Amino acid sequence: MRGSIFIFLLILNLYSYPQQSDSLMVRSIFSNALNSSVAHNHLRWICENTPGRIGGSQASEDALDYIETLMKGMPFDTVYRQPLMVRNWNRGPHEKAWISWNDQRIDFNVAALGGSVGTGENGIYAGIVEVESIEELQAMNPELVKGKIVFFNRPFNNDPYYTFQAYGENAPMRVLGATEASKLGAVGIVVRSLTHSLDTFPHTGITRYKGVNRYIPAFAICTMHADSLAALLESDPDLHLHLYSGCFELSEKRSWNLIAEIQGTTYPQRIITIGGHIDSWDPGSGAHDDGAGCMQSLDVARLFFELGIKPRNTIRIVIFMDEEMDQRGAKKYLEIAQARAEQHYFALESDRGAFAPTGFSFDVSDATLKKFKIWLPMFEEYGIHNFIKGGSGVDIGPLKALGTPLAALMTEPQRYFDYQHADNDTWDKVNRREMQLGSAAMAALIYLVDKYGY
Amino acid sequence: MRGSIFIFLLILNLYSYPQQSDSLMVRSIFSNALNSSVAHNHLRWICENTPGRIGGSQASEDALDYIETLMKGMPFDTVYRQPLMVRNWNRGPHEKAWISWNDQRIDFNVAALGGSVGTGENGIYAGIVEVESIEELQAMNPELVKGKIVFFNRPFNNDPYYTFQAYGENAPMRVLGATEASKLGAVGIVVRSLTHSLDTFPHTGITRYKGVNRYIPAFAICTMHADSLAALLESDPDLHLHLYSGCFELSEKRSWNLIAEIQGTTYPQRIITIGGHIDSWDPGSGAHDDGAGCMQSLDVARLFFELGIKPRNTIRIVIFMDEEMDQRGAKKYLEIAQARAEQHYFALESDRGAFAPTGFSFDVSDATLKKFKIWLPMFEEYGIHNFIKGGSGVDIGPLKALGTPLAALMTEPQRYFDYQHADNDTWDKVNRREMQLGSAAMAALIYLVDKYGY
Repeated sequence: MRGSIFIFLLILNLYSYPQQSDSLMVRSIFSNALNSSVAHNHLRWICENTPGRIGGSQASEDALDYIETLMKGMPFDTVYRQPLMVRNWNRGPHEKAWISWNDQRIDFNVAALGGSVGTGENGIYAGIVEVESIEELQAMNPELVKGKIVFFNRPFNNDPYYTFQAYGENAPMRVLGATEASKLGAVGIVVRSLTHSLDTFPHTGITRYKGVNRYIPAFAICTMHADSLAALLESDPDLHLHLYSGCFELSEKRSWNLIAEIQGTTYPQRIITIGGHIDSWDPGSGAHDDGAGCMQSLDVARLFFELGIKPRNTIRIVIFMDEEMDQRGAKKYLEIAQARAEQHYFALESDRGAFAPTGFSFDVSDATLKKFKIWLPMFEEYGIHNFIKGGSGVDIGPLKALGTPLAALMTEPQRYFDYQHADNDTWDKVNRREMQLGSAAMAALIYLVDKYGY
Repeated sequence: MRGSIFIFLLILNLYSYPQQSDSLMVRSIFSNALNSSVAHNHLRWICENTPGRIGGSQASEDALDYIETLMKGMPFDTVYRQPLMVRNWNRGPHEKAWISWNDQRIDFNVAALGGSVGTGENGIYAGIVEVESIEELQAMNPELVKGKIVFFNRPFNNDPYYTFQAYGENAPMRVLGATEASKLGAVGIVVRSLTHSLDTFPHTGITRYKGVNRYIPAFAICTMHADSLAALLESDPDLHLHLYSGCFELSEKRSWNLIAEIQGTTYPQRIITIGGHIDSWDPGSGAHDDGAGCMQSLDVARLFFELGIKPRNTIRIVIFMDEEMDQRGAKKYLEIAQARAEQHYFALESDRGAFAPTGFSFDVSDATLKKFKIWLPMFEEYGIHNFIKGGSGVDIGPLKALGTPLAALMTEPQRYFDYQHADNDTWDKVNRREMQLGSAAMAALIYLVDKYGY
């Protein structure tokens, strides 16, 4: 039996390693990336000079201009923009949330959810109904909800190692809470921030009004103050909360996806897309979400140029606009691809934070994944052990309509929701080496996909 | 061929998973740990109240007292101390390093290396010889070194994913630089801090005078100022540097290892040691190095108690003293083990920072590692992919003399040297979930080793 296994492993091994030169190239890619500060320094500029890059905002335009200048300084074959229209939502003046407690005013840290309407100048003053889920709300007697503020206060699930699972469980309250609360006659909602961390940062994010005429204001509250509010409510269920927000939405405005291309030597018509999104929420400076993903994508091109890699397929670095609000960049990218009948060979997104990479999540066929897995040993010495089947990313996701194999960079997920959509998503939270391991992993994967296909 | 592989895999599989209950227990351990803030909160107390815990210092005693109280509040069978003597090195007043440059005084951030002599009240004022290694220094004409300050300025190697490799390459300059420079007549040394990070924190660490009579003062300089100094030296090779330190060493004093035991139900005479070291350097508060390792070790016991795990072997949680200076705790622990002819069945150390765990480094036989690897699939869903052969830790290392199989918790290594032995090794740098994945991984490994042996 041992003999036959040995032969089997030998055959597998011959099939696995097309060239020793590939291992050497992968090492060169990682070595160059780990010794480079380029992407990390550009990220610093973007975070410090264009914080709060809501799609279409002046900050988002400044960031695009900066990156376009970078791209034009690199030996790309072409750099261009795809015009598109984005929503024009504005946060307005700083939000307020407070209660009167004996003679005291107790303030809570809140942020309007993205897309929320404002409260009007006089704000809202109402009693509170605390629930732990959309389902719990839906099952309630509407008389108990009418005229109230719904307080969604389910703590993040600490159990899963993959923190995105906890996010998936709680996100419906943020995205659809206002819609469901409106149906029952509520006047506003407050959602516990979507994070494991106990801290004072409200974490915003999109909220949507679906199929309701009455749009009610929606807020995120920081986790520490969610706990305080819950404790106060326990001692006084009739507690009334003041809420104020001055959000407003104007008519849509023009924005862009920004693209830089290296034309393929053998299959110029086949496109490999590598990207992240430059828009961010307005608390914080969009460092992990997703300025870092943009700079890692651009660093893939830098690595190709510096190491003399001439791709067979056309490589497109895409800086997507408006991932957070309405994914207009992603939609426009697909629309143009379809209109031009482009051949999208492969796409890779980085939008899970610039932490140490742990692998790739592939939205590909079983056969393709099996082929890709042959390359995994080259990545393992850099702490990358996962080539798994799963989702890719919001920006490249629409390309699935074209049958394009997709992938997302996976990163160590414990800290992502400490920062996502909050004031503390800043450059100092991004470790240069962790970010650059990600740039290198992306470049190495693209090098192999470009060379060997699937 | 396929058939025989299938049978082989089937046999392997039957051998792999002794009980489904083990997978369930491992999951319970991780779930409990990820939902617990106990260890993280105790670490906060230690960091905030006992920073700079050099072995034998009042801070180190206060930390021991705190942990002893914790231990006595838990259902251990016994809690006790092992007395030992430690060196009594004191940093003295804050160090200074500066040059006169035109009419300016330019200050550099420095810290005396641990164990260094002081400069005397008048300090040192001397020219500078810059080198990149011990070997380069040794090859120099002593006339060029005599009366000078040797400036070891080799940047950290950015290439290796395992940052401890870069540390291993540069540490000899810090540990033996003063000895080698003294042999050539130098009057002091300044060593570039052992970190990848470009920052303003000097990173201290032990320096030793071996086989020389003339002890010369030794300093660490922060990386940013090392670069500044090198640039200034390039424009003026005759640059003179002022150095001042007031370090002094008094006669040795008493300190302790602190131990808590759960007596084994089946093999009470067989000891499994789990530990970290409570002493730290005096910049910073010893959060990652190694307060966290101590609190993770104690958390293993908490997990055992809470989940009702009754170990077959005796479990010893050991809070080692004096890892940083002279490893007196580690030596005493072995000395007592030998004197009492104790049976040390297994030992595990956590001293690589409380980052997300990536695996274990086992100092065991090939056969034992092969057996342990059978358990790896239970760890992989928590991001743990490495069960590899390698070194263990400084505190448990001496047990190798008894033939004890040893292990170290491995963690994501990119950030460790950003903090090690520096002012910024503080509690806020320790992510609760990353730390607790480590506590859980340790508990799960010990649960399996205790149950199945090797």
